[in-house]
Amino acid sequence: MRPEVPAAAPRASSTSRASFGERLAAARSGKGSLCVGIDPHPALLAAWGLPDSPEGLERFSLAVLDAVGPVSVALKPQVALYERHGSRGLAVLETLLARAADAGALTIADAKRGDIGSTMQAYAEAWLGEGSPLAADAVTLNPYLGFESLRPALDLARSTGRGVFVLALTSNPEGRSVQHVGGDASVARSIALAAAGENADQDGAGRPGHVGLVVGATIGDAAERLGLDLARLNGPILAPGVGAQGAGTRELRAAFGGALPLVLPTSSRAILAAGPDGARLRAAAERTRDELA
Amino acid sequence: MRPEVPAAAPRASSTSRASFGERLAAARSGKGSLCVGIDPHPALLAAWGLPDSPEGLERFSLAVLDAVGPVSVALKPQVALYERHGSRGLAVLETLLARAADAGALTIADAKRGDIGSTMQAYAEAWLGEGSPLAADAVTLNPYLGFESLRPALDLARSTGRGVFVLALTSNPEGRSVQHVGGDASVARSIALAAAGENADQDGAGRPGHVGLVVGATIGDAAERLGLDLARLNGPILAPGVGAQGAGTRELRAAFGGALPLVLPTSSRAILAAGPDGARLRAAAERTRDELA
Repeated sequence: MRPEVPAAAPRASSTSRASFGERLAAARSGKGSLCVGIDPHPALLAAWGLPDSPEGLERFSLAVLDAVGPVSVALKPQVALYERHGSRGLAVLETLLARAADAGALTIADAKRGDIGSTMQAYAEAWLGEGSPLAADAVTLNPYLGFESLRPALDLARSTGRGVFVLALTSNPEGRSVQHVGGDASVARSIALAAAGENADQDGAGRPGHVGLVVGATIGDAAERLGLDLARLNGPILAPGVGAQGAGTRELRAAFGGALPLVLPTSSRAILAAGPDGARLRAAAERTRDELA
Repeated sequence: MRPEVPAAAPRASSTSRASFGERLAAARSGKGSLCVGIDPHPALLAAWGLPDSPEGLERFSLAVLDAVGPVSVALKPQVALYERHGSRGLAVLETLLARAADAGALTIADAKRGDIGSTMQAYAEAWLGEGSPLAADAVTLNPYLGFESLRPALDLARSTGRGVFVLALTSNPEGRSVQHVGGDASVARSIALAAAGENADQDGAGRPGHVGLVVGATIGDAAERLGLDLARLNGPILAPGVGAQGAGTRELRAAFGGALPLVLPTSSRAILAAGPDGARLRAAAERTRDELA
């Protein structure tokens, strides 16, 4: 029932029993809270003088890992930008994930996958399964088919010491037409409640849970208005939108309030634009991290 | 801005200006309405005597194409089951898509992708872009980030003569917690309205639109209760759940009523279980198709 395992670097979690929440907390205490997106957009590749090809992707990805891995809590490769190059692009992502594991950098595959039953099980095995060439430390998931449809990934993450981040409340204006629907019992609120319930069902020792949420850093007061009690999540919150989309300390405070200690502010383009020089790239990440500390 | 194009078979639509709706109608008049899912689940591979490996996937996929392509309106490979084998699995999917195009079989990549902005643009280019190794005739999309977040795919599909199928109302019980929320203004209804609006905005000549929906064949009266006016979609409806999940003619009538002419009943496991013998596989598909005619 397992995918065939090609010769690949061992994954950090293969030899570890620590939960994703514990591993994240350890990384956080040493490296701060900033998550950096690895987004090899065509325009960024061009700005770095790289071709829009699998070779360009690989040089870009490994350069970001080297420069930013040591100063960020996690790296978040955007899967769409690898998939855009087909199977050869995905092979580059496999290389990046293996190298990151070797370097001790946590990875969050931003794949936004979602399906049901045995199909969801297949996505779970792809992104969270021991020995899978695409396995990351965590993966982002999409709950349109119901939070509970994600069960195979929730369970596999828990058993392999990995994590998931479920889309809840995003800052793009179109997201409201789904996420805000339902008033006091909004879709976004029900997702947040379900995630908190999942994390509460841990060992009772206050151990951080493995089920995170994706909540945009520029949502303003939407979480409060919709009654999302994010401070009780007991899991990590991935908050894209820092930098290029305008979020800084003030926006993060407004969006998250008492849940701020759970937040991983996430920045991509504002940092990546400082490349390709590795020292400038690292300095940009450190500056952002320190500004948000 | 384009992905590098490896040597690959030409795609049917690269040389055609026909819209996806027109191409689907042409296929339908010759081959009937049945869509067959290509779902290389580990258990099915085992039942066919094939290894759970990229090699097994390839033999399975091409056998289904050969046997079922000539008697189905479209083939729907389940992307999760290829992704489970990493980049090598995706390479098999590329081979399948190229062979299907050569054979004149329409393909619907069941990927359920969804994202925003330039990231959604990357998914659109991966699955719908001219020359992309993963380009299919259509792709399934997930609207949790808002129907309008799918704009890059809607537009690219239109301009390349391809199609999309947006998740609307599914039959898995967990789906209700998102799709049914909102009462008379439910999430599912708003998705169906937006899709119909997109298709209405065509050339005014009653030409079938390129924006389809995914609606489960076993939803019962949910579409009616939630006020989805599917008969006005002017686009195709992909209806999984025929066969293994229990839907037959009666269930399709109950679920779709006057929208039945738009429906592509979709069956996977009930047909695939008849393999690996090609003649038995084709006979199973023909029997299902004729029963539903």
